Amino acid sequence: MKALFHINEPDRWPRVLLNINNFIKDVGPGGTSIVVVANGTGVLAYSQGKKELIRQMEDLHGQGVVFAACRNALNMNNIREDSLPPFITVVPAGITEIVKRQGEGYAYIKP
Amino acid sequence: MKALFHINEPDRWPRVLLNINNFIKDVGPGGTSIVVVANGTGVLAYSQGKKELIRQMEDLHGQGVVFAACRNALNMNNIREDSLPPFITVVPAGITEIVKRQGEGYAYIKP
Amino acid sequence: MKALFHINEPDRWPRVLLNINNFIKDVGPGGTSIVVVANGTGVLAYSQGKKELIRQMEDLHGQGVVFAACRNALNMNNIREDSLPPFITVVPAGITEIVKRQGEGYAYIKP
Repeated sequence: MKALFHINEPDRWPRVLLNINNFIKDVGPGGTSIVVVANGTGVLAYSQGKKELIRQMEDLHGQGVVFAACRNALNMNNIREDSLPPFITVVPAGITEIVKRQGEGYAYIKP
Repeated sequence: MKALFHINEPDRWPRVLLNINNFIKDVGPGGTSIVVVANGTGVLAYSQGKKELIRQMEDLHGQGVVFAACRNALNMNNIREDSLPPFITVVPAGITEIVKRQGEGYAYIKP
Repeated sequence: MKALFHINEPDRWPRVLLNINNFIKDVGPGGTSIVVVANGTGVLAYSQGKKELIRQMEDLHGQGVVFAACRNALNMNNIREDSLPPFITVVPAGITEIVKRQGEGYAYIKP
């Protein structure tokens, strides 16, 4: 089961991570392919997020979850790519990533 | 035409129900398969919703609309399953339901 | 690449238009088919939008972007169809349009 989570507001992160944790718990290990695409101010959490959020993301990344950041959004928010945690994947445009992934069969979810 | 409506905030219910009513009116009876998946605090309306909302849901249920509640969300909000109106379907995880349904050709809508 | 943007809140317009501009810039001219479906109070910008927003929409329309308005939403907000800018396409029901387009392979995005 392939799922893409879209986040463009910083306060939605706890909800997104809870949703992913519950999804993995329900489907079982190895049963999912999960991508999170952050654009807009959703990318703020990657550089300025609380330690607990980053720790949860790292844990999920260790379980195979991809965390992507839109480069346009990073630029607009003056976030340098080399300031991001190493587990973040930077994509040229968040919307392109979202459209591509849906074309590959990923379900879209906006928590 | 198959449509899945996702709701995770209680104040969106009037909008969701209006959207569904307009959709059914436009497509005609028998032309749709509609599922509403509530997770997060979206499930609150099922147990604490105003009578008018519940009445509208019951009416739509009578027209074939499925109203689903995420069990994780019910637990987090201390809602007992046996306190729900009988027309509610409880699913183990709302996100899994959303992913599955999109895989079956349901369009995703987040009102 | 086919993308459908759904907007049902007026304050999301700048975000929607920025997303579309970045998407077109990333994919290149001629590489996209883009539809914006406005329902709920999202339609207000079509008749009462700031000149700068309308100008941006017109520019994108010139690049092939379709801007659709839900007739139910226009009626609910007392907006006459003949008061809309000429580049707006009125559809009988926004939800039907969203469901149809996803069936035609359009990715869904809710900015």
